[in-house]
Amino acid sequence: MSVHVISIDQYFDKDLLAKLYKRANDFSKLPLADYPKPLQHLTLATVFFEPSTRTRLSFETAIQNLSGQLITVENAGDFSSAKKGESLEDTILTINAYADGIVMRHPQIGAAKQAAKVSRVPIINAGDGGGEHPTQALLDLYSIQQCRGKIDGLSIGLVGDLLNGRTIHSLVQLLAQYHVTIYLIAPDSLQLPAKYLKLLKSNGATIHQVDNWDKALGKVDVLYMTRVQKERFKFVEDYLAIKDSFILTPKQVAKMKKEAIILHPLPRVNEIDPAVDQDPRAKYFEQVKNGLYVRMALLEYLFKH
Amino acid sequence: MSVHVISIDQYFDKDLLAKLYKRANDFSKLPLADYPKPLQHLTLATVFFEPSTRTRLSFETAIQNLSGQLITVENAGDFSSAKKGESLEDTILTINAYADGIVMRHPQIGAAKQAAKVSRVPIINAGDGGGEHPTQALLDLYSIQQCRGKIDGLSIGLVGDLLNGRTIHSLVQLLAQYHVTIYLIAPDSLQLPAKYLKLLKSNGATIHQVDNWDKALGKVDVLYMTRVQKERFKFVEDYLAIKDSFILTPKQVAKMKKEAIILHPLPRVNEIDPAVDQDPRAKYFEQVKNGLYVRMALLEYLFKH
Amino acid sequence: MSVHVISIDQYFDKDLLAKLYKRANDFSKLPLADYPKPLQHLTLATVFFEPSTRTRLSFETAIQNLSGQLITVENAGDFSSAKKGESLEDTILTINAYADGIVMRHPQIGAAKQAAKVSRVPIINAGDGGGEHPTQALLDLYSIQQCRGKIDGLSIGLVGDLLNGRTIHSLVQLLAQYHVTIYLIAPDSLQLPAKYLKLLKSNGATIHQVDNWDKALGKVDVLYMTRVQKERFKFVEDYLAIKDSFILTPKQVAKMKKEAIILHPLPRVNEIDPAVDQDPRAKYFEQVKNGLYVRMALLEYLFKH
Repeated sequence: MSVHVISIDQYFDKDLLAKLYKRANDFSKLPLADYPKPLQHLTLATVFFEPSTRTRLSFETAIQNLSGQLITVENAGDFSSAKKGESLEDTILTINAYADGIVMRHPQIGAAKQAAKVSRVPIINAGDGGGEHPTQALLDLYSIQQCRGKIDGLSIGLVGDLLNGRTIHSLVQLLAQYHVTIYLIAPDSLQLPAKYLKLLKSNGATIHQVDNWDKALGKVDVLYMTRVQKERFKFVEDYLAIKDSFILTPKQVAKMKKEAIILHPLPRVNEIDPAVDQDPRAKYFEQVKNGLYVRMALLEYLFKH
Repeated sequence: MSVHVISIDQYFDKDLLAKLYKRANDFSKLPLADYPKPLQHLTLATVFFEPSTRTRLSFETAIQNLSGQLITVENAGDFSSAKKGESLEDTILTINAYADGIVMRHPQIGAAKQAAKVSRVPIINAGDGGGEHPTQALLDLYSIQQCRGKIDGLSIGLVGDLLNGRTIHSLVQLLAQYHVTIYLIAPDSLQLPAKYLKLLKSNGATIHQVDNWDKALGKVDVLYMTRVQKERFKFVEDYLAIKDSFILTPKQVAKMKKEAIILHPLPRVNEIDPAVDQDPRAKYFEQVKNGLYVRMALLEYLFKH
Repeated sequence: MSVHVISIDQYFDKDLLAKLYKRANDFSKLPLADYPKPLQHLTLATVFFEPSTRTRLSFETAIQNLSGQLITVENAGDFSSAKKGESLEDTILTINAYADGIVMRHPQIGAAKQAAKVSRVPIINAGDGGGEHPTQALLDLYSIQQCRGKIDGLSIGLVGDLLNGRTIHSLVQLLAQYHVTIYLIAPDSLQLPAKYLKLLKSNGATIHQVDNWDKALGKVDVLYMTRVQKERFKFVEDYLAIKDSFILTPKQVAKMKKEAIILHPLPRVNEIDPAVDQDPRAKYFEQVKNGLYVRMALLEYLFKH
């Protein structure tokens, strides 16, 4: 049976994370010419029913770096069979004939799970609407570990729309496995849903909920910024009232610890001033690169496990 | 001079079919690592002026499995030169500079022939509007042979819009070369055009035209289902009156011979109940996989002939 | 520091041109199987914020011919991060994590320069609105040299919208380095801007400005035709008044020297009658092929320099 990657709470325990991260770290150090070719003669299909250039290019470079083959549906909205009324299940069974694995982005929550039910090859969820985006959480945690050398014992600030942020929800599930202090930095109306709060607490994390970050900035080892996504709001006024609540500028960064790091899943709009990019604590573009290595490690694991 | 694949009645005689099918069968059995690399250093261009994800991905996996290179125009409607007023001939001559072969889908009947007139590299017609789609017919016939071990002597039921079905018209031309019994299962208004009927008869096929499939179901060795395509009807009422005439459910399948097979070019809408998929007679997803092997055999033949 | 290719006046002096053209000529003669693999394990990203199928496919074949890897954003308008409000700088820094070089087409003048400011990998400008398209000029000059064996001493006719033609402006800058006679063949309202005229003159070129080509046709060694681009005109009447001024038919070609050559950057609309294609002087499809070799030489130079 195939192993799918649908949700971050599936089987990403500390042991598997350690294994994947060790491999990602290997990949980050090897010259490409010395890479193994474990995926030679395997074909990965990237099937994007909704565009996500960043995630798609990351997987596409990853599979090629491992010497695998690639087929792409870039222009998701135009997927011709879907337009003709084909079910998602039939589309997946068809691509099963061409590919050994499928990376799928879809606008509907649950689409990845639905695909995995029929697929005989691994499905990797690259985002299903307001659902999950597990490989983003994998690379976020990896970035923390790479930059700080550990996860246990850290104080981590999560900033932005914690209510709706898919990225935040996935990351929180991973962090719950570690001994961490979490600062939940958001307006009250956008705080973390109760179920994730409960999960963190039941695993022994120390939690601080704050709607003003002035005091938190100096205490965190990791500041994880996110974009407030307009498309998640019912009323545009709610969005406008809140969108500029947490803008990171050099002035704020000056309050942070010297060895702290700043992460962001990107794309950013205005929530991090580009003047911050030059600060050595800004690690968000390094984080993008880490995504490549983590995805290489994951693909190798899925196909060679 | 280049050999193009425009129409099924070109040169696909029994000898060539036997040769291609033997090779397709080889490809279906070999582990990919043991494939020959006959198309190394050759570039295939897939140029889709109209989207067809299924056909495109099939060719793209095929060329890569044979170690060839790939360039793609996925987003046909946006073909930038065509938008600037370039003729199809100039587009083809331009792509001749980059590719050793061109797989083309185009919305207009005759476009493939028009392209072949100027192209110095092989053109493979991947569908030209209401015209032809020869590689679909090649894989359909291959699927019959693979599943049943032969073609001569079989009873084959063709179901759906036999009047407008491009796939049906191409398949009928191939079947005419064999000793077969054909059940043409369709409403009277959607029966097979006279010219194809004449072709079948002049080649000695036994023909039964029926508008009710109850009696035919128990007699066929192959049931070839097709979608009734809304876009081929002038009046939507005609479409609605007919579209649910032939819906295959487990109840119908129960009437079929035990060793019969069910094929469908896909995508399906509602004409085969997904409950049928579990029946061992359902071979339509195997048929998709066969398409990959047949296209590999065809590409190898075209470039190495 | 990376070397970017933004503008033709950067560093393409006669020495570098000679070096690139020698290499392009090598590539044109070698069987692909004997090509070196200098770009193995390098990834090129083709990122088209505006479609340009011809240029994209040319680079994509080039990188694969050199054994490099390829990631593509074909559907520029849909670039998902840009839609979410991401800056061009962030997009480029992100792609830096995946690719070793970026070929970019963008609708805005100056976009390539803006990208190069932040990119740690080479940016190749594949057209920035009304700005430049340097690799087109490189292949145009190469085509002249290949067909005529030299550039110095030639009489070259430039035809069309010399005022707005991006291609013309880039080519003129290259030609200014050689001892040439230039016929500027255009309606008065579409003549070459003063700054390019000055550049040509200060480098010693002999210039003839003519609005009727009857006398020039017999004198030129190279006739460089261009399309009058509707989208560059403020008023459609101005476009209509001018668009058919210079249509090349066999009747005009008959007035040309026997060894003259006809070039065109393509796509053409109606400015060269297809009846001219059969004339041995018509070299515009050979020019397309030359584009492939020149881009291979340029990619090798940029990555291996």
